[in-house]
Amino acid sequence: MSARDVILKELLEASHLQGVEALLGWDQETYMPEGAGAARAEQVAYITGLMHTKLVGEPLKGALSELIDLETGELLTMTLNDRETRQLKEIWRDYRQQSSLPADFVTDLAKHASVSQQAWVRARKDNDFAFYEPFLTKMVEMQQEKAKYLAIGATAYDSLLDQFEPDMTSEKVSGLFAEIRARLVPLIKSIREVKHRVNGSILTKEYDVDQQWNFGIDMLKAIGFDMNTGRQDRSAHPFTTSTHPTDVRTTTRLRENDLKAALLGTLHEGGHALYEQGLLLEEYGNPLGQAISLGIHESQSRLWENLVGLSPGFWRFAFPKLQAKFKDQLRNTDKEQFHAAINRVRPSMIRVEADEATYNLHIMLRFEIEKMLINENFPVAELPQLWNEKMKEYLGIEPANDAEGVLQDVHWSFGAFGYFPTYTLSNLYSVQFFNQARQDIPGLEDQFGRGDFSALLTWLRENIHQIGRGRKAEELVLELTGQPLSAQPFMDYLEKKYTKIYNLS
Amino acid sequence: MSARDVILKELLEASHLQGVEALLGWDQETYMPEGAGAARAEQVAYITGLMHTKLVGEPLKGALSELIDLETGELLTMTLNDRETRQLKEIWRDYRQQSSLPADFVTDLAKHASVSQQAWVRARKDNDFAFYEPFLTKMVEMQQEKAKYLAIGATAYDSLLDQFEPDMTSEKVSGLFAEIRARLVPLIKSIREVKHRVNGSILTKEYDVDQQWNFGIDMLKAIGFDMNTGRQDRSAHPFTTSTHPTDVRTTTRLRENDLKAALLGTLHEGGHALYEQGLLLEEYGNPLGQAISLGIHESQSRLWENLVGLSPGFWRFAFPKLQAKFKDQLRNTDKEQFHAAINRVRPSMIRVEADEATYNLHIMLRFEIEKMLINENFPVAELPQLWNEKMKEYLGIEPANDAEGVLQDVHWSFGAFGYFPTYTLSNLYSVQFFNQARQDIPGLEDQFGRGDFSALLTWLRENIHQIGRGRKAEELVLELTGQPLSAQPFMDYLEKKYTKIYNLS
Repeated sequence: MSARDVILKELLEASHLQGVEALLGWDQETYMPEGAGAARAEQVAYITGLMHTKLVGEPLKGALSELIDLETGELLTMTLNDRETRQLKEIWRDYRQQSSLPADFVTDLAKHASVSQQAWVRARKDNDFAFYEPFLTKMVEMQQEKAKYLAIGATAYDSLLDQFEPDMTSEKVSGLFAEIRARLVPLIKSIREVKHRVNGSILTKEYDVDQQWNFGIDMLKAIGFDMNTGRQDRSAHPFTTSTHPTDVRTTTRLRENDLKAALLGTLHEGGHALYEQGLLLEEYGNPLGQAISLGIHESQSRLWENLVGLSPGFWRFAFPKLQAKFKDQLRNTDKEQFHAAINRVRPSMIRVEADEATYNLHIMLRFEIEKMLINENFPVAELPQLWNEKMKEYLGIEPANDAEGVLQDVHWSFGAFGYFPTYTLSNLYSVQFFNQARQDIPGLEDQFGRGDFSALLTWLRENIHQIGRGRKAEELVLELTGQPLSAQPFMDYLEKKYTKIYNLS
Repeated sequence: MSARDVILKELLEASHLQGVEALLGWDQETYMPEGAGAARAEQVAYITGLMHTKLVGEPLKGALSELIDLETGELLTMTLNDRETRQLKEIWRDYRQQSSLPADFVTDLAKHASVSQQAWVRARKDNDFAFYEPFLTKMVEMQQEKAKYLAIGATAYDSLLDQFEPDMTSEKVSGLFAEIRARLVPLIKSIREVKHRVNGSILTKEYDVDQQWNFGIDMLKAIGFDMNTGRQDRSAHPFTTSTHPTDVRTTTRLRENDLKAALLGTLHEGGHALYEQGLLLEEYGNPLGQAISLGIHESQSRLWENLVGLSPGFWRFAFPKLQAKFKDQLRNTDKEQFHAAINRVRPSMIRVEADEATYNLHIMLRFEIEKMLINENFPVAELPQLWNEKMKEYLGIEPANDAEGVLQDVHWSFGAFGYFPTYTLSNLYSVQFFNQARQDIPGLEDQFGRGDFSALLTWLRENIHQIGRGRKAEELVLELTGQPLSAQPFMDYLEKKYTKIYNLS
């Protein structure tokens, strides 16, 4: 076997393990009996350890070192084409990351992540931060340790951020956030002054959850989610995972008095799922068959959730169908009122249910807190108080309890620090991509009105999904839109949209 | 680490892989999207390969060879107590079995088993044996090859049988079957002559499947199934699997016009599950925390299904509850009529739905056919015809199509040849065990009538579940009941039972 074939074989085997790990995680959040938690943590840790061993093991390392200098990343071969070179560079990037982590640490971290996530589920249910605190404290310490091993960024936090959004820095994020905040705060203020112009109460009537489920499935199918290679289930915290591009699973959360959360959550996860289902099967197991970054991944979910799911065109198609399912509740509402209601801007406690404007304030708050935890040893025990103060500062409201405050997100429980900023980056990406798609596809909004999302999906497949990691995130934005990553298109979009909905001057 | 600690560590890791494999299999039969079949086969094969590597790898082999002669199984150490010696002998048995199989063969077999099982699902649904034939042909060939590697029995078939029921031979099975047949055929004939005395039509009215499900869950809880460490789902073919003793999963199949199948199927799988939930946690990962044999495993399911679930005592407790769920259907039936109906003897097409008497004829038929396939190269293409002829000979009826004929069982599709005889053995074990439990627990039948199954479960836990593989199957029977394995108690039980129900002379 050639060195390249050895590498691809080893990575394919690592992907089998990754697929298995995804199933273990999916099952843990959906159907696993509660009493199986400890055993599951052992299983996950063991599989993670095997995967790590595979990714830093002698077969891969030996073959890789024939083609690329393991220290510097310089190519040692002249025989690769552009695409193969990209592929090799990304493989090397992963190798460098994995090989910086000791095997025991990887296993211990995976075990703690599973245990800590289960502790979070319980703490959130019982509104008991004190129970969760030692798990999170240990997780913060392990992430600080991880940052030391990775040692790729200017600060510990930057090293963690780079895992999720390669080449992104907290300085760059701060710059973008400042730009957004400068225009967002006055925009939200203008909206607050005329908030009576949009009434959202229609969304909190009683909506049968089974009918909500059915409507969500209809919408998933409409946007192109393939039920033959995917499924949806229910879980405490909606997520998408994939054991393979032919097995992509989303979850949703349904509540009787909240139509918006389930509906947009379903479209959001559907966007993630379309990306996973759109990865090239023939590149399965190597970077060219993988998502570019979390930010780009999230751009797909935000695009379907917001740019599609909150658009007037979408509701021209979807509202009559929704109305048919909920005759009594929606009898006296028309699609314009509904569209305004679902776009209402109002500071709220829960990030995943926030509107498009205030959403980014939730992210900025988390970004600030994450940096304090990782870079400045801010004590975890004081987190609830800090959280509530920041909520007051950023959003002008305070959680009634920790369950709707600091305990609301799963991310930190399994060690995802440096992950949140990708959510706002994704909003920027999504608008830049969508603007381009609208230019490239004449009559896109009309297609939505007819329930036809196929041209958009094809555009995303060809320009994003099938690229795999053949481009870096910012490179893709520049290449695809002719513009660098910027907050301006996003803020232009928000201002234009809300000016219309709220009839701002 | 001592040699024994190394062995236990390696086996624990193999158990993690086995747990993961169980989850992959469970998911394949319950929730996996259909399009994921090919990817799943790769994942299963990869994990199976890892498990094999672990079980024959140098760490285990080296440590084992310090304690036991790998060729002969003779002990090389004097420091082990009885229980540790048992444990070591069983580990050696497994090692010998695993190490006789080439690694590539193990992976190929696992992959084919997954693919072939999926082909069976489709073939059964479409009633299309021709589609399935090449998969089964390849599987028979692979099993013949496997038998050559195992090379432990007098015939190829005996080598396969020994995997599922250690130390059992087809000669011994034939002897027991002959004994059963000699008394069973006249018994069934006597019943046929007075078949009008029991009317089973009450069981095929329309019964809402959700209510059937709820009743099944109630019964599972009543017999002691722990929902905190287990769950039930639906699948095409009911089964039980375990990713760990704290995560035991059963499935059931529900049909509106068949009350008996779901109910007894649920108790049957519940019996398997109670065994798995009753294994010693502190012995997890080694033979002392594993089931003795498939026959003993099945004895637990048959005991709960038949000795409990078909007993008058059980229905004194359960019938009023069933009646409350199905008021209209059961208005004019009393518990004695119901008990007779659910015990009705009638030759039928589907093994898993057969009564206790004719059930064993289904097994004998499969045993004959399996031997022909494995030992005599009987052509798979001619299997449907052979099946139908044997059905005529053994049960006097012929399937209308292959779906209710040769395609009804999943077992051969994933390579379980030599497995079926354990079903009849289990009937013998179950009656011998139950007779003993009734001697040991005064008023057992009265306890059933009050819905109290705890004394029986405790007896099974202490005398069987917690033994692990500390005893061989026949050894356990002898030790526990004072009698060797025999067909006589089983036939005595059947004759006595049906004499009463059918008022035979």
